[in-house]
Amino acid sequence: MPTLFHFPLNAASRLVRLALAEKGIEAELKVEKTWERRTEFLTINPAGEVPVLVEDGGAAIADAQVICEFLQETRADPDMLGPTAIDRAETRRLMVWFLQKFAREVTDNLVGEKLLKRYLRLGTPRTDAIRAGGQNIHYHLDYIAFLTDRRNWLAGDKLSFADLAAAAHLSCVDYLGDVPWEKHPGAKDWYARVKSRPSFRPLLQESLAGTPPPKHYADLDF
Amino acid sequence: MPTLFHFPLNAASRLVRLALAEKGIEAELKVEKTWERRTEFLTINPAGEVPVLVEDGGAAIADAQVICEFLQETRADPDMLGPTAIDRAETRRLMVWFLQKFAREVTDNLVGEKLLKRYLRLGTPRTDAIRAGGQNIHYHLDYIAFLTDRRNWLAGDKLSFADLAAAAHLSCVDYLGDVPWEKHPGAKDWYARVKSRPSFRPLLQESLAGTPPPKHYADLDF
Repeated sequence: MPTLFHFPLNAASRLVRLALAEKGIEAELKVEKTWERRTEFLTINPAGEVPVLVEDGGAAIADAQVICEFLQETRADPDMLGPTAIDRAETRRLMVWFLQKFAREVTDNLVGEKLLKRYLRLGTPRTDAIRAGGQNIHYHLDYIAFLTDRRNWLAGDKLSFADLAAAAHLSCVDYLGDVPWEKHPGAKDWYARVKSRPSFRPLLQESLAGTPPPKHYADLDF
Repeated sequence: MPTLFHFPLNAASRLVRLALAEKGIEAELKVEKTWERRTEFLTINPAGEVPVLVEDGGAAIADAQVICEFLQETRADPDMLGPTAIDRAETRRLMVWFLQKFAREVTDNLVGEKLLKRYLRLGTPRTDAIRAGGQNIHYHLDYIAFLTDRRNWLAGDKLSFADLAAAAHLSCVDYLGDVPWEKHPGAKDWYARVKSRPSFRPLLQESLAGTPPPKHYADLDF
């Protein structure tokens, strides 16, 4: 069984957990506290970041987007990238959008400041960053509604890694109760569909000691 | 002929120019000043960033890593990703390393502060950022030497997108004369090999008005 080094409210780790579950791959989960910079972990990923997937043979695959590509190449069914090169480019563009742009503009500002900073005792959360994150999220929720108004899922007809990447990030922000769902019914409809998938269940059952999620977090009919 | 929207000292754009040249694909280059947020450009890439490759049929592919995957899928020869899934994961991991980690820790701090900020009249360069960039680059040059001490190229036996991503970023920093080559002979040897490829020539001939590169920049025997 492969091993996944991850951290509970790390959105990139959540994407890989969803991808593994959608592909029906069981993996042993190991929590990695990356800030401890464990030598053994740095040997398998010199970048020192989660997620890292370690295959049975010992090969280590680092980075969420790279792991998704690897899973698609080694376990083709179901296809989570798309049938044509253009389709796959669209899925990858949206993965980059959420894993990098949404991360920088929203998740880092909200989850990073409000939750991780406290957890790691890194000082007082920056109110300007939190304000920016709260403003930026509207634009991204509008974009999700724009896309799903034209397509069944974010990148096309079928569920893809793009939906999982977006939902992984939103689930972390939703854990704080910071997603203004009521103002964005289109994005909410899409998220309800992703959230109700069996792959999502383990994420909704997770709880950080001392910081429980709001009631609606695990509610499929939120 | 495809069109590439790019910007001269944008490292991600340079990666795609190198990738196109290594694959023998001619493309029409169009400079895009992303900060002007041209409506027509935002329509083809809502993220508003370069590079964007527009195919003859009109399909637009955004983001350097996504464009490289697309080029490999649509023009298989020469292979720039690697023969096995594990090889490809290693190439992609190093692409992410340079396109995201090196970008954040080095290029943004040096090229972003010293060159783009002045060009865009965004205020005084932050000396703490410049100092951080100058310190961080040593670690990355050591990592390049570590890898090429064990392999012919960064990700394995053959030249790959990983080499092009690393060299694209380093070429932008080198334009400022900010790469301490003399302290890193291993990285210098590797860079000399990439730099002497015909694909690199157009980048070395480029010059920004008012900010010429140092003498060694275009010198293959630097």
